[in-house]
Amino acid sequence: MSESPERDARHKARMQRKKAVVDGKIAQATDEHGLLLVHTGNGKGKSSAAFGMVARALGHGLRVGVVQFIKGAASTGEEAFFRRFPEQVRYHVMGEGFTWETQDRQRDIDKACEAWVVARELLDDPSIDLVLLDELNIALKYGYLELEPLLADIQARPLHQHVVVTGRGAPPGLIEAADTVTEMTLVKHAFQAGVKAQKGIEF
Amino acid sequence: MSESPERDARHKARMQRKKAVVDGKIAQATDEHGLLLVHTGNGKGKSSAAFGMVARALGHGLRVGVVQFIKGAASTGEEAFFRRFPEQVRYHVMGEGFTWETQDRQRDIDKACEAWVVARELLDDPSIDLVLLDELNIALKYGYLELEPLLADIQARPLHQHVVVTGRGAPPGLIEAADTVTEMTLVKHAFQAGVKAQKGIEF
Repeated sequence: MSESPERDARHKARMQRKKAVVDGKIAQATDEHGLLLVHTGNGKGKSSAAFGMVARALGHGLRVGVVQFIKGAASTGEEAFFRRFPEQVRYHVMGEGFTWETQDRQRDIDKACEAWVVARELLDDPSIDLVLLDELNIALKYGYLELEPLLADIQARPLHQHVVVTGRGAPPGLIEAADTVTEMTLVKHAFQAGVKAQKGIEF
Repeated sequence: MSESPERDARHKARMQRKKAVVDGKIAQATDEHGLLLVHTGNGKGKSSAAFGMVARALGHGLRVGVVQFIKGAASTGEEAFFRRFPEQVRYHVMGEGFTWETQDRQRDIDKACEAWVVARELLDDPSIDLVLLDELNIALKYGYLELEPLLADIQARPLHQHVVVTGRGAPPGLIEAADTVTEMTLVKHAFQAGVKAQKGIEF
């Protein structure tokens, strides 16, 4: 593209202002501690974004614990991949998990409670830098687990430890307790147009 | 939690109905081809979700190409991690990238064009199953690249190849062309409360 010197100069001035704003915000943000992050909403990417954070953490040599509250075809790719790093990643998938596939509420409650026992061990372990509680919101939404005691466990974790909770329908109490909350909003989805869930994308 | 048999039965009936709906949708979705996905919006997780997809794809033994259109501190964790797999991942970071840090428009345009040359090579390569064009939307937003020729290259890719484009401000033409679009919406962000960007979370 051919560009005029005027446009270049305007761009430079605008970018200088932007840099000043960004640098100012960075200078003000000095607090450092483990964060509680929540990925919710009906769109894609809630778990994927959490697993992207796992990859990033591993790149920094950090240690990660993962508890998947729903096991399904949907988790095979991540699981296969992150199990390659047993020294950096503790990876737990609860039994067959629950969902509309099981249709047995009491069994689902038992499985969710078992999964929380594992989650609490990770939250107690200061050698773990990031804990991913994948699809925990679903267990809360169905009332398989109660929020209050879980939040107490989360808040009692080591100061430096980050926690990411995923799943649609995050309860208001969790959103309130979180440091960072992102809602993944569905704009459009190939599935709606009749495209099959595909390896590497949906699972 | 103690549960009544009535509640269990209602749960079972509801889950049976849900399973029927889900199974029906799955049966209808039979089309299989490479998807164009867009992650946009002002919330966190756009790039993270894309890198989570990269991890998932690697778990399935697929091959991935990454072009990062903005290089910054923000990419160090992913880059360090995914460069561990040179046989499965081709990883490209364009020069120093552009943004408000460079303040030189013509140089940024040149860099964006160079990055697209690399992207087009990946889009031409049938051995690559997933192409991640990280922060491409920023290059489009600033007018460093024009959408039309890029879309033509994307649409001419091998039939099975998936493409993920990230960055806030995705142009309407890209959203229209995409199969799946997720908007990451900021509900709240620790940075706003003065918490510093942290290793493993923001970069």
